[in-house]
Amino acid sequence: MKTKPINFTERFAKITDLWSPKIIAQMNDYHFKLAKIEGDFIWHSHQDTDEVFFVIAGSLTIYLRGGEVLLKEGEMYVVPKGVEHKPSAQQECQIMLIEPAGTINTGEAGGEMTAQNDVWI
Amino acid sequence: MKTKPINFTERFAKITDLWSPKIIAQMNDYHFKLAKIEGDFIWHSHQDTDEVFFVIAGSLTIYLRGGEVLLKEGEMYVVPKGVEHKPSAQQECQIMLIEPAGTINTGEAGGEMTAQNDVWI
Repeated sequence: MKTKPINFTERFAKITDLWSPKIIAQMNDYHFKLAKIEGDFIWHSHQDTDEVFFVIAGSLTIYLRGGEVLLKEGEMYVVPKGVEHKPSAQQECQIMLIEPAGTINTGEAGGEMTAQNDVWI
Repeated sequence: MKTKPINFTERFAKITDLWSPKIIAQMNDYHFKLAKIEGDFIWHSHQDTDEVFFVIAGSLTIYLRGGEVLLKEGEMYVVPKGVEHKPSAQQECQIMLIEPAGTINTGEAGGEMTAQNDVWI
């Protein structure tokens, strides 16, 4: 059994691409993913699951149809199942996502920003 | 729909008791809980689920049968299902737990440290 904790600073130092989540831990059938993001993502939703955004460094805006959520370092937000959202960061931001294994970053929308779920466990 | 993020500093400021997790968010059938801890917890396990420990402030040792994990601020660890563990903090530590709704803090062991799952959503 591993007895080494997961250190976010160390893991983020190895991420060089944007909008490309790396799976760094699994709890039951859920994945914990780290991503660096900057600029605008696309509007999308996940029909089958809620999705947790957690800001490790920087700040993130999650646009919703009819509102927006500004997350700073040390803040989290749960995007409810089926709710359209568009993450956006004016400067590079480090986030953790928590969602069921197999969840696709672009949800129902698809398109060229769809990323592999790289496994870095 | 809420458009306010969950701020850990604000939430921890309201927690006055030790070893008493407060549910601050739900993702599908999982709960996110904040707790202040200090001293030793009891040995216990959760037969049906993995459990995530995330250190928000301070440091935490998770003793395992045959090893230990030291977690500092900004580190996380997944205790696998069925694995006996004993959390311990020499000084006050702020942690987030992530686990299925209904998970009891003392797992199979029970006893006087068994806490209510207070809902602070």
